[in-house]
Amino acid sequence: MDNPTLNTQYDFGMIGLGTMGRNLLLNIADNGFAGAGYDKDATKAALLESEGKVGTVKGFTDIQSFVHSLKTPRAIMMLVPAGKIVDAVIEELLPLLDQGDVLIDGGNSYFTDTDRRATYLKDKGFHFFGMGVSGGEEGARRGPSMMPGGDRDAYDIMRPTLEAIAAKVDGEPCVAYMGPGSAGHFVKMVHNGIEYGLMQLISETYAIMRNGLQMSNESIADVFAEWNEGRLQSFLIEITRDILRYKAPDSNHALVDDIKDEARAKGTGKWTSQVAMDLETPLPTVDTAVAMRDLSKYKALRVEISPLYAQASTPLNVDHGVFLKQLEQAFYFAMVMSYAQGMHMLTRASTEYKYELNMAEITKIWRGGCIIRSRFLGQMFNAYKKDAQLAHLLLDADISHLINGLQTDARQVVMATVGAGIATPALTSTVGYFDSLRSARMPSNVIQAQRDYFGAHTYELVGQEGSHHTQWTDK
Amino acid sequence: MDNPTLNTQYDFGMIGLGTMGRNLLLNIADNGFAGAGYDKDATKAALLESEGKVGTVKGFTDIQSFVHSLKTPRAIMMLVPAGKIVDAVIEELLPLLDQGDVLIDGGNSYFTDTDRRATYLKDKGFHFFGMGVSGGEEGARRGPSMMPGGDRDAYDIMRPTLEAIAAKVDGEPCVAYMGPGSAGHFVKMVHNGIEYGLMQLISETYAIMRNGLQMSNESIADVFAEWNEGRLQSFLIEITRDILRYKAPDSNHALVDDIKDEARAKGTGKWTSQVAMDLETPLPTVDTAVAMRDLSKYKALRVEISPLYAQASTPLNVDHGVFLKQLEQAFYFAMVMSYAQGMHMLTRASTEYKYELNMAEITKIWRGGCIIRSRFLGQMFNAYKKDAQLAHLLLDADISHLINGLQTDARQVVMATVGAGIATPALTSTVGYFDSLRSARMPSNVIQAQRDYFGAHTYELVGQEGSHHTQWTDK
Repeated sequence: MDNPTLNTQYDFGMIGLGTMGRNLLLNIADNGFAGAGYDKDATKAALLESEGKVGTVKGFTDIQSFVHSLKTPRAIMMLVPAGKIVDAVIEELLPLLDQGDVLIDGGNSYFTDTDRRATYLKDKGFHFFGMGVSGGEEGARRGPSMMPGGDRDAYDIMRPTLEAIAAKVDGEPCVAYMGPGSAGHFVKMVHNGIEYGLMQLISETYAIMRNGLQMSNESIADVFAEWNEGRLQSFLIEITRDILRYKAPDSNHALVDDIKDEARAKGTGKWTSQVAMDLETPLPTVDTAVAMRDLSKYKALRVEISPLYAQASTPLNVDHGVFLKQLEQAFYFAMVMSYAQGMHMLTRASTEYKYELNMAEITKIWRGGCIIRSRFLGQMFNAYKKDAQLAHLLLDADISHLINGLQTDARQVVMATVGAGIATPALTSTVGYFDSLRSARMPSNVIQAQRDYFGAHTYELVGQEGSHHTQWTDK
Repeated sequence: MDNPTLNTQYDFGMIGLGTMGRNLLLNIADNGFAGAGYDKDATKAALLESEGKVGTVKGFTDIQSFVHSLKTPRAIMMLVPAGKIVDAVIEELLPLLDQGDVLIDGGNSYFTDTDRRATYLKDKGFHFFGMGVSGGEEGARRGPSMMPGGDRDAYDIMRPTLEAIAAKVDGEPCVAYMGPGSAGHFVKMVHNGIEYGLMQLISETYAIMRNGLQMSNESIADVFAEWNEGRLQSFLIEITRDILRYKAPDSNHALVDDIKDEARAKGTGKWTSQVAMDLETPLPTVDTAVAMRDLSKYKALRVEISPLYAQASTPLNVDHGVFLKQLEQAFYFAMVMSYAQGMHMLTRASTEYKYELNMAEITKIWRGGCIIRSRFLGQMFNAYKKDAQLAHLLLDADISHLINGLQTDARQVVMATVGAGIATPALTSTVGYFDSLRSARMPSNVIQAQRDYFGAHTYELVGQEGSHHTQWTDK
């Protein structure tokens, strides 16, 4: 099937025919574009052709034939594991490309790698895009949310294809040009950080119902189902409902009960927290989610520590109906805070890295296709549409009104779980974030004084310019 | 004063004659060693001589004369800002050194820089030490805690000097060989991370008394003074007491009230959190402290957000006497957890980087001289002396007994402050850490199921080998 003399005919090329790559290409084909795929693994190339309609997709195992099969200027996406493999593929491609071709890295590459590659390829006359793709396998096949960043002019080459395959909300595609350089990968990284936070919050909410209210998986699934019909409607709540209803093979109990409580991670949440710290922007909900994934892996340690400490979690002595309403409010509160922290980080990054991010556009393309899609994103979109320069989501009047209606119940849930010894680290740290953020004056003056006391690091006075140092004792 | 033909005579050399460098060298001189100091800045070199006794210290502004004035094998410490300056000083020194000389970096260099420099200098025949020095100006002058890491054999060259100048506890010096390569700087980094956590916890405790109990600075100082007489005795509590009693010039109110609530940082706490994430070890108390230093700098944002949200902090409706006892318990609880998280990170790093750290030795040298010194470190020392392989401080029977006596009051304080809207993010995240750590089963199974649902990331089953993937819905 690899014939280098083949006529140029395919609209879009895909390198890496794993599930994501194949599904995206099949999605492209469904939308009337002819797609060519390349993978060294002949099985995957063949699988692509067997899954697609004849003539709309073609699988190659020879990279030269693959490249030659594409219309110019070529649009080629890589969906290969982040890291050195991306660089290796680029090197393999370079001699085969023509000036003006567009190369797209659709994986979760670290954003500084993307900046490096963009510069490297620009110098050679090629366009490079770092594009976040969210939605998992299903999203890739039926419509993902995509966050492309790179050369503004070159965006038009791939724009028709991307808009065709993207998820749609109110008829509008969930894809938009994010900004120059690594803007797309950066936005996707923060998307994943928010995702970590929401997943941790859902797992805590689950634990509150399971251990605190002693509810069955079926009943908890019903609660998530109900929430998903209302203002909490979101992909992650929806799939949690499905997960809790899924029975283990040949049994009557939920499969989730048999799954190890050791959460793995591919690192994008960790990156988000680490980069937030470099940007000096607080992101405690994500930090906690990362820490808890790490702690979950210390299974043997937890099992050894557990019996040494008084009861692990007492059932909550509350009215279930009332408490479940409070829990919905508390989850909503923490969910809003998670998004708000992520958006704050993006605002900061936009300045630092000159991305000139359009916050309204970001919230708009997150409304569908991606893992953190939710009804609330519509409200975020409205907030940024009203004020494109909004420094923090909590400055929006509607959000402020919303949060003021939720915060009391969020506190009630924290008080109940902390009192009963049920672990809710992300929820509590989220309340801590909110209470600090709304403090016109934090007690950080004490920290500044301490730093000056032991390290002569100096301090500043309210309403005055300049730094001061004090000899705090006679000693 | 710079005569290259000068006879070799000084025991110890110091490069960088800022306050820390001068104080350490004066300390060395006090202990009967002759010290030579070098700084390009003639004022500082002169200042050193004016501060020291004649004949015991000498200041140089010419690096060659400085090096030639030292006994061989030379022991030369650099106390210059971390980063490129360290490399520049090394390059300047190299042509002047003899094989076998020992170079010590006493600053807060990032540990991977220290590993790189150690390898570089070893190849050239020199010994290199990365040494954490804690205790601030006062510690440097009267006795710091020092954490040297590097070539085991070369440690003996500088050991007598270091042991002489170190702080002493029960007659034992607060210095010990930490391990190879970057072990010393790594231990110091984690020391600083713990320091960030404790400082944040103290500032929150201050805010609880100030805003929740509406206490005056004088009364709060009295509370810290009382705590410092008991089991909470520690350098950071002690200086907080002093700070709260210090009056602003020509006034009757505490200076701390005039200090801006924007805490700065030099980055070692941030490094600790970031590296803990790379090591996949949970460190939420430090993470929160870092996030809160960052949030403190968003002063304008906080001032703008504050009025949009219901009351910032209600006075606590509690019996002051009873509550202050609970607060002491809560602080102790969080203090123990902060140390425990840091030690856990060191245990993990010791394996990962082959440091072979001696935990008992680390806790021993932290008992005096350093910023996080406290009475509790004696108890930590005992725990690690009993069991050098202790995987986590909370596995120790005495610590377990202690924590079980504290945790109820820690919960009471969290419930009170969260209910009243007083920000206690570090305290609450610390309770969240504890409740998760003592969970034999965390709800992370839900996260694993979610990851498999949307990303086919697979999951593992309890009591079984291997990975599984499920098609969770028919869709």
